[in-house]
Amino acid sequence: MIVDVHTHVYPPTYVELLRRRTTVPYIRNFEDAPESARLIILPGEDDPATPSTSRGRPIGAEYYDIAQKVAFMDMHKIDASVISLANPWLDFLPCEEAGDAARKINDDVEGLCAKYPGRLYAFGTLPLSAPAKTVVKEIERLAGLEHMRGVIMGTSGLGNGLDDPALDPIYEALQKHEQLIFLHPHYGLPSSVYGPRANEYGHVLPLALGFPLETTIAVTRMLLSQVWDRFPKLNVLLAHSGGTLPFLAGRIESCIRHDGHLKKHGKTEGRRDIWDILKTNIYLDAVIYSEVGLKAALDASGAGRLMFGTDHPFFPPLEENTKEWHSVNANYGAISKAFGNNEEAAEQVLGNNARRILKLSP
Amino acid sequence: MIVDVHTHVYPPTYVELLRRRTTVPYIRNFEDAPESARLIILPGEDDPATPSTSRGRPIGAEYYDIAQKVAFMDMHKIDASVISLANPWLDFLPCEEAGDAARKINDDVEGLCAKYPGRLYAFGTLPLSAPAKTVVKEIERLAGLEHMRGVIMGTSGLGNGLDDPALDPIYEALQKHEQLIFLHPHYGLPSSVYGPRANEYGHVLPLALGFPLETTIAVTRMLLSQVWDRFPKLNVLLAHSGGTLPFLAGRIESCIRHDGHLKKHGKTEGRRDIWDILKTNIYLDAVIYSEVGLKAALDASGAGRLMFGTDHPFFPPLEENTKEWHSVNANYGAISKAFGNNEEAAEQVLGNNARRILKLSP
Repeated sequence: MIVDVHTHVYPPTYVELLRRRTTVPYIRNFEDAPESARLIILPGEDDPATPSTSRGRPIGAEYYDIAQKVAFMDMHKIDASVISLANPWLDFLPCEEAGDAARKINDDVEGLCAKYPGRLYAFGTLPLSAPAKTVVKEIERLAGLEHMRGVIMGTSGLGNGLDDPALDPIYEALQKHEQLIFLHPHYGLPSSVYGPRANEYGHVLPLALGFPLETTIAVTRMLLSQVWDRFPKLNVLLAHSGGTLPFLAGRIESCIRHDGHLKKHGKTEGRRDIWDILKTNIYLDAVIYSEVGLKAALDASGAGRLMFGTDHPFFPPLEENTKEWHSVNANYGAISKAFGNNEEAAEQVLGNNARRILKLSP
Repeated sequence: MIVDVHTHVYPPTYVELLRRRTTVPYIRNFEDAPESARLIILPGEDDPATPSTSRGRPIGAEYYDIAQKVAFMDMHKIDASVISLANPWLDFLPCEEAGDAARKINDDVEGLCAKYPGRLYAFGTLPLSAPAKTVVKEIERLAGLEHMRGVIMGTSGLGNGLDDPALDPIYEALQKHEQLIFLHPHYGLPSSVYGPRANEYGHVLPLALGFPLETTIAVTRMLLSQVWDRFPKLNVLLAHSGGTLPFLAGRIESCIRHDGHLKKHGKTEGRRDIWDILKTNIYLDAVIYSEVGLKAALDASGAGRLMFGTDHPFFPPLEENTKEWHSVNANYGAISKAFGNNEEAAEQVLGNNARRILKLSP
């Protein structure tokens, strides 16, 4: 059984919302290419100074037509998918609109899942620009929807990052209702870090590095603010195999233990360390495109905490007339190489973990 | 035989230079603690708005007294060390001062090595704020100094990053004289990424994440600008096991292959890929503080390209009255765990690789 835990949709309600907008994020057809709709979502992505990325990416029916999702699953032998709204979710909405929009989109996604019994589940979307109590109410509502298995969340939280104590009521509600957070990047890094020639490299630096580095920073800030000491049963699934967390965990732990300021305030001891949290609260997807990265993720969290994903509909086939997705096969290939003859562990990662952890009954 | 390839000094010439300065980087004794000199080197580190880090770190004789370096080596059973000036090197000097300063510091360091025959070697420092021809001249001069085995370099290059075509004459000279670059971070990431509570976390975020993420961005920019296609014999030793490069290599390669802009310009094919460069031009130190990270570094580059390091004199013993360095033992421990019973591979990483690659004759 194969389950994809990292696969996105822009349901019709959300596509309409993006079509009505004229600033990032938005969808539009440019006058010189009226037949091709473009999705422009990343911060600064419509900057005319960087023409290599200023028109985002083409958006077709694979982004919003659920039948295409299911056809993709069939082609790549995926039995069930846990779909999630893609970035930037509702982070950008005025606070008074967020609660309503979240309800509509979650109901829309729940409806899509209901069309394909046993094949589709979902992570819900939270109205994070609304007051915390509105967010908590939506968490409670999501807990009652048949196909919801947690929430997808960016790194901004209520606007001040995931180490913001104002998130505590939200973490508490998620813990209480056993709703997992699927933590996903969107904001990347300030473009200055990519230097004056970034325009020559298309989307490579923000996608290949900005995304995973953003995730790593966000989760390390959660660790440093001791979120998991306060909420020991809060579970988080990290996108892209944790950003770079498995690789850097040793350095992070060492820097904490050696830090003069933390030592002075008694904060280097008496806390749950990163390895404990990696093996108790954190799950990792297996979207890392190489055996090297996948084995590090496996070493950090254990085979029982890794779950296959595709990142569909991003990273489509390399050639227009190719059906199979190279990106998906790279992730399948990494699993088969990393596990060699250990079929049981490979099956855990491919689907059995997701079935158990997310209580799927396909 | 054990060789430490990542170990820093601030030789007397450089300490004097920092003592004369009043803006970052500098060394000073504060009026309310006159007995304790402080080293303040990181960008924005003296910002009074972040008191947890605004006085940098204590600096003692372990930073500049070479006898203390050798005593440290003896205690931790290190036979030979390849010392390098610590960050921020000479990046901040006015161009007319850089050439002279580099010569003095390199001669100073060469003299320190000569005091301990067979035990000390060095990576030289380049005057990167001077014109390229001054830099090239110093590379040529370094090639003739008995103990020099390459150069240490930050990620700024001539001010525009390591993907700057203006660096080509410098890369050419380094390749010609078989001088390896030890690529080391200093600038980190813009502080905005650490959020409004960064002050509570001391130096953890800039050191544990800013440093390795900076290295990863720098080396990926080199890759994208095809430095190694132009200079196929240019060798680079990456600090901190490559930042996060081994873990992210698969994602970087996948993002290159999928990039619309690169594809349009025919740049996804006909280039040396990241795995080729990892196994041909890149060496990694073993300063990663965990078995998980070390194994990923090993998987990415092979046991013949990994070299032990300590980062001395940073990350000193955890307790004042302890002699052994926890940070050093964490790196030793990672090697012994990662290699298990494969003593030959462990010996390669501990010293034999460095002896061969850097042509040491201890």
